Amino acid sequence: MIDKLIEGIKQTKCPVCVGLDTMHTYLPEEFEADEKKPLRSIGDALFDFNREIIDSINDIVPSVKVQVAYYEQYGSAGMRAFKKTIAYARKVGLVVISDVKRNDIGSTATAYSNAYLGGVEIGGERHCPYESDFITVNPYFGIDGIQPFLNDCKKYGKGIFALVKTSNPSGGEFQDLKVYRKRLYERVADKVDAWGQDLIGEYGYSAVGAVVGATYREQAQFLREKHPTTFFLVPGYGAQGATAADIAVNFDANGLGAVINSSRGILLAYKKPQYAGMNFKKAARAAVLDMKEDILSALKANGVNL
Amino acid sequence: MIDKLIEGIKQTKCPVCVGLDTMHTYLPEEFEADEKKPLRSIGDALFDFNREIIDSINDIVPSVKVQVAYYEQYGSAGMRAFKKTIAYARKVGLVVISDVKRNDIGSTATAYSNAYLGGVEIGGERHCPYESDFITVNPYFGIDGIQPFLNDCKKYGKGIFALVKTSNPSGGEFQDLKVYRKRLYERVADKVDAWGQDLIGEYGYSAVGAVVGATYREQAQFLREKHPTTFFLVPGYGAQGATAADIAVNFDANGLGAVINSSRGILLAYKKPQYAGMNFKKAARAAVLDMKEDILSALKANGVNL
Repeated sequence: MIDKLIEGIKQTKCPVCVGLDTMHTYLPEEFEADEKKPLRSIGDALFDFNREIIDSINDIVPSVKVQVAYYEQYGSAGMRAFKKTIAYARKVGLVVISDVKRNDIGSTATAYSNAYLGGVEIGGERHCPYESDFITVNPYFGIDGIQPFLNDCKKYGKGIFALVKTSNPSGGEFQDLKVYRKRLYERVADKVDAWGQDLIGEYGYSAVGAVVGATYREQAQFLREKHPTTFFLVPGYGAQGATAADIAVNFDANGLGAVINSSRGILLAYKKPQYAGMNFKKAARAAVLDMKEDILSALKANGVNL
Repeated sequence: MIDKLIEGIKQTKCPVCVGLDTMHTYLPEEFEADEKKPLRSIGDALFDFNREIIDSINDIVPSVKVQVAYYEQYGSAGMRAFKKTIAYARKVGLVVISDVKRNDIGSTATAYSNAYLGGVEIGGERHCPYESDFITVNPYFGIDGIQPFLNDCKKYGKGIFALVKTSNPSGGEFQDLKVYRKRLYERVADKVDAWGQDLIGEYGYSAVGAVVGATYREQAQFLREKHPTTFFLVPGYGAQGATAADIAVNFDANGLGAVINSSRGILLAYKKPQYAGMNFKKAARAAVLDMKEDILSALKANGVNL
């Protein structure tokens, strides 16, 4: 699956995933809720909005990242929208990263892996209710909470991104603690690298990647140099404050090695002055193209061509 | 909510939460799946089984812990069973701990908190689809990923348990790393303690508790002495190998300060030789009473009476 993501990046020249972190408050007026069944109508609206966004960007990006929290908050109507969104995105050929940050002891991690990667067997048939290409996971439990995901990566050609250095302001509260001569996030990155060594694809990157926040440039640069087989999922561009120059350090000399997420910057582009007069679909597409240009320019400034 | 949990423990003299980690393979033969709609019939069966377990134990325990992973793996049918299970358990007066281990940056943590604690406002009405009394959370993001949960704890009288020292074999891979003179889990425990200081209830315990695995006895003993206002949710008894003597160190001199979880030991009691001839409900009840006896004896051996 990491190879499919990289091929998509090479083909579109756009190392971007569009973050479908869709809230009902983000929707344009035409998606008005039905007061009689507000949750159900919001669930339908979330999917309709996402489908239109997907249709407007799917020829120019390789992947979407769908943050499950935004759907969980609407209960079953939201989870139906999540399921339909990831299924639709996969159907049109996008690589789907479900951003779930799941984590638990081995037996329970197996159940999570069943939900998103591997599926549960019932009456001889495999059911994977929220089948995704990648998911994000939290590494706090160590290897035996990760192994079930690795098993499904091998068996079904899936991938994971484990949290290493997160993009939020207090990310360093534990992640930056110094353990002998290294920071905790460096120790985590070392393990993530090791966990992925037998899942390396034909471009030299592993299906076991790392989440590395764009808001911590120096740390990202260090990790990029240290872990040449670890692919980075990079949040923090745009709404969270990171610039293209910040994110350029996450790429290798061939412009590969990272996929940059933007959520609000694309979903809410239709509310920005520079896209005035565009509907939400056109604004989203324009915002993706501007983001692509911004990243490619920053890479070029570093002498890198994708 | 921490006060309600403690009152329930004092009333039942049973510091136990029954872990409803229900899988379709755990169900007795009478819950046969309908081959035509296997997922839906499994969802119904999970709830029916849980309801019968709840009915058979709700007068002898204060709380249940419901592990969402086991429901997510069945998709919407599973999540419906999860929702119905927690609603039913709350209706009959049990304190419900939803074991979700959610974690993310602040804006996304808010969405998770909406789902389980606070609710989302739609058309002036509050909708909390999976309303629980407590949830478990993962602290890897630091305070700004925790603050949204704290806000809802204050506003709605809820509680959280943050992962500190997990019960699994590789739990120490990161948690035991030495940061200056302390282990990482000690650093996390210090923060969890501090996060909870303005949520302390009338028994001297905070609504911000810690997950402390029963399988690491010395560490638990250390944490109990160090953090007198932090209530512990203790997994690892039974199927994971911890004995009552191991778990006794998690309690204070009054027999308070901890609630011990058992999942498979109770749900699957009907398959054990010592409960032969009992149906699953009677076996679950007998297993809870045996567990209570086991814990109270171990406490007594330490000179503690609940």
